[in-house]
Amino acid sequence: MENKTRTDGRQPDELRPIHFELDFAPHASGSVLACFGNTRVICAATLEPNVPRWMKAQGVEGGWMSAEYSMLPYSTLDRKKRDIAKGRQDGRSVEIQRLIGRSLRAVADLSKLPGHTLWVDCDVLQADGGTRTASITGAWLAAEVAIRRAINKGALAESPFREPVAAVSVGVLEDLGLLDLCYVEDRDASVDANIVMTGSGQFVEAQASGEEATFSHDQLIQLLDLAKGGIMKLVQLQNESLASAQLERPIDL
Amino acid sequence: MENKTRTDGRQPDELRPIHFELDFAPHASGSVLACFGNTRVICAATLEPNVPRWMKAQGVEGGWMSAEYSMLPYSTLDRKKRDIAKGRQDGRSVEIQRLIGRSLRAVADLSKLPGHTLWVDCDVLQADGGTRTASITGAWLAAEVAIRRAINKGALAESPFREPVAAVSVGVLEDLGLLDLCYVEDRDASVDANIVMTGSGQFVEAQASGEEATFSHDQLIQLLDLAKGGIMKLVQLQNESLASAQLERPIDL
Amino acid sequence: MENKTRTDGRQPDELRPIHFELDFAPHASGSVLACFGNTRVICAATLEPNVPRWMKAQGVEGGWMSAEYSMLPYSTLDRKKRDIAKGRQDGRSVEIQRLIGRSLRAVADLSKLPGHTLWVDCDVLQADGGTRTASITGAWLAAEVAIRRAINKGALAESPFREPVAAVSVGVLEDLGLLDLCYVEDRDASVDANIVMTGSGQFVEAQASGEEATFSHDQLIQLLDLAKGGIMKLVQLQNESLASAQLERPIDL
Amino acid sequence: MENKTRTDGRQPDELRPIHFELDFAPHASGSVLACFGNTRVICAATLEPNVPRWMKAQGVEGGWMSAEYSMLPYSTLDRKKRDIAKGRQDGRSVEIQRLIGRSLRAVADLSKLPGHTLWVDCDVLQADGGTRTASITGAWLAAEVAIRRAINKGALAESPFREPVAAVSVGVLEDLGLLDLCYVEDRDASVDANIVMTGSGQFVEAQASGEEATFSHDQLIQLLDLAKGGIMKLVQLQNESLASAQLERPIDL
Amino acid sequence: MENKTRTDGRQPDELRPIHFELDFAPHASGSVLACFGNTRVICAATLEPNVPRWMKAQGVEGGWMSAEYSMLPYSTLDRKKRDIAKGRQDGRSVEIQRLIGRSLRAVADLSKLPGHTLWVDCDVLQADGGTRTASITGAWLAAEVAIRRAINKGALAESPFREPVAAVSVGVLEDLGLLDLCYVEDRDASVDANIVMTGSGQFVEAQASGEEATFSHDQLIQLLDLAKGGIMKLVQLQNESLASAQLERPIDL
Amino acid sequence: MENKTRTDGRQPDELRPIHFELDFAPHASGSVLACFGNTRVICAATLEPNVPRWMKAQGVEGGWMSAEYSMLPYSTLDRKKRDIAKGRQDGRSVEIQRLIGRSLRAVADLSKLPGHTLWVDCDVLQADGGTRTASITGAWLAAEVAIRRAINKGALAESPFREPVAAVSVGVLEDLGLLDLCYVEDRDASVDANIVMTGSGQFVEAQASGEEATFSHDQLIQLLDLAKGGIMKLVQLQNESLASAQLERPIDL
Repeated sequence: MENKTRTDGRQPDELRPIHFELDFAPHASGSVLACFGNTRVICAATLEPNVPRWMKAQGVEGGWMSAEYSMLPYSTLDRKKRDIAKGRQDGRSVEIQRLIGRSLRAVADLSKLPGHTLWVDCDVLQADGGTRTASITGAWLAAEVAIRRAINKGALAESPFREPVAAVSVGVLEDLGLLDLCYVEDRDASVDANIVMTGSGQFVEAQASGEEATFSHDQLIQLLDLAKGGIMKLVQLQNESLASAQLERPIDL
Repeated sequence: MENKTRTDGRQPDELRPIHFELDFAPHASGSVLACFGNTRVICAATLEPNVPRWMKAQGVEGGWMSAEYSMLPYSTLDRKKRDIAKGRQDGRSVEIQRLIGRSLRAVADLSKLPGHTLWVDCDVLQADGGTRTASITGAWLAAEVAIRRAINKGALAESPFREPVAAVSVGVLEDLGLLDLCYVEDRDASVDANIVMTGSGQFVEAQASGEEATFSHDQLIQLLDLAKGGIMKLVQLQNESLASAQLERPIDL
Repeated sequence: MENKTRTDGRQPDELRPIHFELDFAPHASGSVLACFGNTRVICAATLEPNVPRWMKAQGVEGGWMSAEYSMLPYSTLDRKKRDIAKGRQDGRSVEIQRLIGRSLRAVADLSKLPGHTLWVDCDVLQADGGTRTASITGAWLAAEVAIRRAINKGALAESPFREPVAAVSVGVLEDLGLLDLCYVEDRDASVDANIVMTGSGQFVEAQASGEEATFSHDQLIQLLDLAKGGIMKLVQLQNESLASAQLERPIDL
Repeated sequence: MENKTRTDGRQPDELRPIHFELDFAPHASGSVLACFGNTRVICAATLEPNVPRWMKAQGVEGGWMSAEYSMLPYSTLDRKKRDIAKGRQDGRSVEIQRLIGRSLRAVADLSKLPGHTLWVDCDVLQADGGTRTASITGAWLAAEVAIRRAINKGALAESPFREPVAAVSVGVLEDLGLLDLCYVEDRDASVDANIVMTGSGQFVEAQASGEEATFSHDQLIQLLDLAKGGIMKLVQLQNESLASAQLERPIDL
Repeated sequence: MENKTRTDGRQPDELRPIHFELDFAPHASGSVLACFGNTRVICAATLEPNVPRWMKAQGVEGGWMSAEYSMLPYSTLDRKKRDIAKGRQDGRSVEIQRLIGRSLRAVADLSKLPGHTLWVDCDVLQADGGTRTASITGAWLAAEVAIRRAINKGALAESPFREPVAAVSVGVLEDLGLLDLCYVEDRDASVDANIVMTGSGQFVEAQASGEEATFSHDQLIQLLDLAKGGIMKLVQLQNESLASAQLERPIDL
Repeated sequence: MENKTRTDGRQPDELRPIHFELDFAPHASGSVLACFGNTRVICAATLEPNVPRWMKAQGVEGGWMSAEYSMLPYSTLDRKKRDIAKGRQDGRSVEIQRLIGRSLRAVADLSKLPGHTLWVDCDVLQADGGTRTASITGAWLAAEVAIRRAINKGALAESPFREPVAAVSVGVLEDLGLLDLCYVEDRDASVDANIVMTGSGQFVEAQASGEEATFSHDQLIQLLDLAKGGIMKLVQLQNESLASAQLERPIDL
């Protein structure tokens, strides 16, 4: 990887400044404003004492985790029309919220969430690339805070999460692999990948797409390595943030 | 008015702590997080260089101002289902966003916004009573910032706003008139009113409702007086906030 | 108030000719065509032996009253597209039907409607200003007829209504306060208010809006007085109509 | 056909009392309350100076005629939920409004309606069987009044209608053919047919359905004869009503 | 009937080549690709062990049969937009699927389908006129196969179908009555009829429409005769196809 | 990779029997029934002489390619409710159709499709795992046939496709990597991946997901290799099928 400078002066394998502001939405059981540079996403976790109808119908035991994703109208430079004003949910949002949900469930033992649904809402306050990976990273943090508070309160016996999960975007721009792309980099990249990994370095999801272009096996391997470095750093930051959380705060359940 | 103490120790004619955090959503032309105690609403204004289809069809000159209001799912203690998940907009939200739009237009000369629509989005981050009045108060502030930046940039010749507009809730609880009700006060009030006034003390909207109760002429007069005191204070705070705004920030138009 | 003549020759404090045609929709339990001049609204009340799901979920006792409002496509001079053809309910209709429902509930003791929902449908047959106030006035009359028939039939023990409720519009046109505005007056008014009061002269709702204009405290007080005169007359007409109702007509319940 | 007496004492080949109340919805260009016994349908015709988008796209000359049908919530003994509350139009209503539209177009020369759409709205005020046939019969009457007023006003050169169109229901109940079924007859009939004919006795639509039953060729022929008798009478009543219409009334176009 | 040659060389009373390809959709309990010349419709029947909510609510015994009809986007020469992309079901499809459902129920004794719903889906793969009649004819065949397999499996005691049902289109083109119209004939026909009959020659549905034209009693009689000849042939082909069905194939129920 | 036998006796790196039935939907410009074992998908390509509105609005040159994916109700063992009956498109379908569209565009030069949109519809007739990869593989084949016919007809100068694109699913089941999973394998797999590659062996999309599980770097590399082998075989079969296509068939454009 050569040492070209990026728009914002970062090294190719350097994350943007990462910041987690806990309890950003105090009425949720756990919440965080997850900031990857200028990308800022409100992630809020709520535990509800019920499970989806299909679980009851199919007699599935345990609980469920579900995510919803939305871009606030003022998150983009051009105002983005609300889904309800268009009458249908944006296809890209559907795809992203399904990814967030799967990512959380991949590191969870749902039998340890009996009779509960964990809702995680991710609303993008400011979009500058990588909103889905910031959402996943923040979603787990908000969820873990909510879970720990529920344990403190005696509503759950132990955490369904086996380990943390975090995500980062990587891409190829002018043949150079880049970590954590901002909007202008993402727009111009020929390959765009979103990688989700656990704290122990296992993959949860790996999605790489050519943007009206294709990519080689070697490029893919390089991107996966780049992502792993970023995710390990993100998991460390998640843990630091978690250590500072006020877990004794009472929650409404 | 007797001197009973309120849940949070305020005097009957005392506002909650008011705070405006400017440029909370930096991709909007103007934005503010409007805080009335624990009620926090994101208000974001965007100027779009076009007008609604009906204005063109009817040959109406000038511009338009429109508002959208929504409660984020985690703004309430019980998670509130999204409109798009229910397939229709909440009736209460429809009512509120129409009120916000009318309030802004009442103090505006739309002929000074030629060919433009000013969108103001109000999303409730945390709800503790008075979300519609915090929305109106913040909406005007966000809008005025957006307008002034558009003037600085040369996109508008002068401001369509003749004067500020702000709003506050008032109510009757156990026969006592109260200013700026928090959620528990609002829930228990027998009369609930939302008053919108201009900076010069003229009414824009006055809406008073009995909550499975009725009210007398005298009670209404008392509530209007109480509201006027609060709104004059709010307008002063809007002006102070405006004085600190970074109006030279470039906007995307 | 000076003595300018109005479009239709009325005095400023004069109602239009008011007429209630009972049992206009004979399949409803109670119904009326409420006519305020050329404004004609079909108001129909139906008692259903069940309550909304949220009441059951929250364990609320008693019954419920709900209203729906719609303008028939041919009620306006230009044909109004149906809601179902547009795919969503008109925002103004949402606002109005919520107002009608609140107005009825404000004079009702819902514990006297155990296990029942009273639906009141208001469909505007001809619109000439004041459709919402004609709707409220007719809605109560239709509802009271339905309730009395249910009592006659033994389905209810006593009426949930403590007293009548009626409504009228008032407004300021060329600095003159006017009662019961017709469409052209409403269109040109600088202030438009809708006042809902009980038979004993208590307020239920008071809503005053500047139409791209503002109004003073004195103007508001004057409008409230004007409205009170009109509403007291309307309640008298409601009572006269009620006295002529064929309450022994059997209803389907 | 034997001479059994019907629920309401009519002969098998006897229509219910038919009544047309013209200008029932005065804001429409032409309107009528079409009453077939206790079945009462508001039929309102409006001329709009434009044509559907598909006509422009396909370069089709002339004008268009379109119908919408709906049952008001209080038209049935059990309140019928509104389409907009259910989020989709009732399948039966879709079927009926398509039939009304086709019936009108079958007797029209659309080239004589250049650049215009004739909308006919049919809203059932009270349902007692045969609402679709009352709708068609009333729709033509309302439409013809609107057309004649448009001609009087100079907006159209001549009528697109070549002749009247009317409709009636017929059915088989306990092996007896009956004309113009009321609700209880319709509910119990084994065959239900709706016949649409022109003033000169030509068929426009003939629809016969077995209701969880089948029917023979002879039964169908008998029903067609029965219908013809009723329709000839209806056309005569349409013409009498038309003769009394105030065609010089100005319309909004 | 004179002996003019048709577009495809058929006699006026000649069906197109008819072909039934059984088990076209093997995951359904019974299915067929019903081909009337170039019109090809996938008809698939599935038995579900439950009944519609309204049957439970009204305490109706037995089972239900319901049909859904759709044109695949590529069934027409110009691509047809999907219903879900337009947000509402096509009015013509609503009308047709209601007709298919009624046709099946007319020859069924629903008490012999206790606790079950028979769904029949008809999706047009290729449209060349007569898709609704091919759908009905194929729907019964697919349904009968599903029913017989359910009987073989012991899930039903006997068939609810009393006899076969089939349908064909007939029309008048240049004063000539034609059987089984292809698209170009249908497009140019002045009268278009769809006739549904049982295997024993009784009518189930008879629908004849003038296409911006009208028709005489004699024309209708002629069309009914023409249709009867075609349907008797179709029923024979249904029976031949049924004789070759592999009824012992296990189904998922 | 050890040599365990699979449910259907295949080797781990063996595709199911692959079959392409060309011109399955003759009204489309190009179509194929793509069969991967018991998974059968109708893929149909239609060229429309227009581009999406956003392209015009943004002044983007060239053409567009768009895909729609749906599972027919009878494609699964339990009947799958239609999207239009539920009122919203299935989230999984949204995700898949976006993937199909991106896959086609990745191998296309859209400037060679000036003023046209290529629609590719993929409807699953029978689902037994791998419907999205069969869809992509069939979509390209159908699209290429449509394009070549458009070139033959003179409507396009040259093909926008640079090379073929095909896709296959791979997964890990009991620690064994498997190619082209059928439904029961897919259901039990701990990792599920869908790989899209070009004819020259470049990646277009690579998506791997842990199913309530995670996976290692080595597992991912193994899956990518397995997929490559399968895709190279699929591309060969696409080319063989293409060689047999009747390209001179006229199309409607």
